Amino acid sequence: MAQDPWLLTPGPLTTSLSVKQSMLHDWGSRDSEFIRINGEMRSRLVQLIHGEGSFTTVPMQGSGTFAVEAMLATFVRPKDKLLILINGAYGKRMAKICDYAKRAYSVLEWAEDQPVNPQQVADALAKDKAITHVAVVHCETTSGVLNPIVEVGAVVAQAGRRLLIDSMSAFGALPVDSREIAFDAVAASSNKCIEGVPGLGFVLCREAALKECKGNAHALVLDLYDQWQVIEKTQQYRFTPPIHCIVAFNQALTEHAQEGGVSGRGGRYRANCKILIDGMRTLGFETLLPDHLQAPIIVTFHMPADPKFDFQRFYDKLRDRNYVIYPGKLTVADSFRIGCIGRLSDTEMKGAIAAVKAVLAEMGVKSGAPRKLAASAE
Amino acid sequence: MAQDPWLLTPGPLTTSLSVKQSMLHDWGSRDSEFIRINGEMRSRLVQLIHGEGSFTTVPMQGSGTFAVEAMLATFVRPKDKLLILINGAYGKRMAKICDYAKRAYSVLEWAEDQPVNPQQVADALAKDKAITHVAVVHCETTSGVLNPIVEVGAVVAQAGRRLLIDSMSAFGALPVDSREIAFDAVAASSNKCIEGVPGLGFVLCREAALKECKGNAHALVLDLYDQWQVIEKTQQYRFTPPIHCIVAFNQALTEHAQEGGVSGRGGRYRANCKILIDGMRTLGFETLLPDHLQAPIIVTFHMPADPKFDFQRFYDKLRDRNYVIYPGKLTVADSFRIGCIGRLSDTEMKGAIAAVKAVLAEMGVKSGAPRKLAASAE
Repeated sequence: MAQDPWLLTPGPLTTSLSVKQSMLHDWGSRDSEFIRINGEMRSRLVQLIHGEGSFTTVPMQGSGTFAVEAMLATFVRPKDKLLILINGAYGKRMAKICDYAKRAYSVLEWAEDQPVNPQQVADALAKDKAITHVAVVHCETTSGVLNPIVEVGAVVAQAGRRLLIDSMSAFGALPVDSREIAFDAVAASSNKCIEGVPGLGFVLCREAALKECKGNAHALVLDLYDQWQVIEKTQQYRFTPPIHCIVAFNQALTEHAQEGGVSGRGGRYRANCKILIDGMRTLGFETLLPDHLQAPIIVTFHMPADPKFDFQRFYDKLRDRNYVIYPGKLTVADSFRIGCIGRLSDTEMKGAIAAVKAVLAEMGVKSGAPRKLAASAE
Repeated sequence: MAQDPWLLTPGPLTTSLSVKQSMLHDWGSRDSEFIRINGEMRSRLVQLIHGEGSFTTVPMQGSGTFAVEAMLATFVRPKDKLLILINGAYGKRMAKICDYAKRAYSVLEWAEDQPVNPQQVADALAKDKAITHVAVVHCETTSGVLNPIVEVGAVVAQAGRRLLIDSMSAFGALPVDSREIAFDAVAASSNKCIEGVPGLGFVLCREAALKECKGNAHALVLDLYDQWQVIEKTQQYRFTPPIHCIVAFNQALTEHAQEGGVSGRGGRYRANCKILIDGMRTLGFETLLPDHLQAPIIVTFHMPADPKFDFQRFYDKLRDRNYVIYPGKLTVADSFRIGCIGRLSDTEMKGAIAAVKAVLAEMGVKSGAPRKLAASAE
């Protein structure tokens, strides 16, 4: 079969053929072999945060956002108050979830090219004693900025509050270590840095905290406490699980371990990211973020100033060359994004840069330099 | 590779190899090819209920129950009242959903071996003017009983109320015709009679009714109105869709059409069901339901009276012979269930009967006759 396009997107992403081939079977959702695979997946995820003995994996059918909504509504009681740290679309989405679930919340906001500031979090917690929980996004895919979750965890713990983490696009490539950060729950999904296919979210929950959460959730299907209780008691799901997706995810976890776990996976992504940024800079493009704020997940580039640059044509021509970049933007800045996660190595990243170079030439674009830089060069 | 076990379960079920092979690719969730496939899937589902021009498909990540919860909470407003028709576990689950979503409801209950009674529904609607909506389960998988949704639809329409249908285990094999039944929405899923893999629910919604549902839903991810609006406007999902599952589902819809649509698929299942029931009766087993109440989806058999019959051994030994039956029971009666849906034909059904016969012989069980029949024979 022809080579599928390489997905330079923040997930769903390019997965290995062996991950996809693991879906060429059917399993009964209540049969022993699937139960074994599901249990293995749950244990492996706990190991990734070094949470053995204190954390449990609660899978959530749907997608990452299903897991985030389930986490917020299960852990934050109607009488609690959540402080949401926002520097992009995923932080804002948590506020929207609280509007639906009728949870009290306040927000701290930063510009999308700025990380959240732990000192300001400490100040906000000191000021508002009603706040019981803090929610933070690990890597804000809006811009690709890395948030300092260790430092945020420290000030939240210092203030005696509970931390909930959305590590969606970072989990498996950047460390989330339960021995270093005090948190009640971290949410992620099957189709990001573990390199599985989409269809499953999950929340790694501190059992002592989850035990207190009976009756909190606003929706039956999103009740993490009930989901946990039933899976623990019966080893089965309350409602049909995405079996093929889970089997593929467990295979992806095998391959993640073979690559050296979080440090191995993160190392490849950092190398991919460097090839991408170096290559694009050579072509005149500029990143939205300075390097020290950039997570090795997805990179935001300013739109080129050259009037011959048309983003839709750029996207389509790259796709013709088998490289799919992210078609939409979430940032306020006029920009576009290219991901560097998934089953991609230096070969594909160098191929992507060569394709960008060729497409620019075809379009008659001399440089990827953005407006502000072009202006200062005048 | 070795033949996977045949799944004689009510779904997840045995799918064709071509359905599974369609998952051997990766797609961007916002890329044109996936958007085309998703659009085709949505149109085909509307065609299955003859709803062109008035109905729309709103996919829901997760599972069938995610779709049912989304349907109830989106269509039934907080000021409305739902009448739930219950003759098994899936009707009861709708009541539980209403408890979470804080929707007013009352119930009408029948024994699990009885269909819902349309005249009693008419009486209840005449008595309680506060009731705005009625919810019914098409085929109650608890026992396998077929509910008369056409007749229920008639009395609900006559009373000027709105009908919501859970057709999970029947959709695609038994007709749900929007020209014959007045309903606002019907929910089903990818992994039942269309023979796709699990991971997607969907709700076919009457557009005129859905238009009135803005702001009703209790959870962001389960908001069918918002999901619909965004998909219509952008052709994209609000949150990552289970791409591989959707592509496989569209392939399953192709194969469903090739088999002759609902009547072709239903015909094969009826033939499967007849082989199953006839064969089991030959071995002494008795069905919970009389034939005229039996849907050709899943069949409940009374437990044999013979003390040598041990269900777990029976299940395990059938599995050793590559036939997986349903391991759990939901009925009040002491019983077990065998499904007849999925990519199974007379060969597999006859094979299953032969395996049951062989396993009974191995266990030293002379007859599958249940207690009450054994007693009357004394």
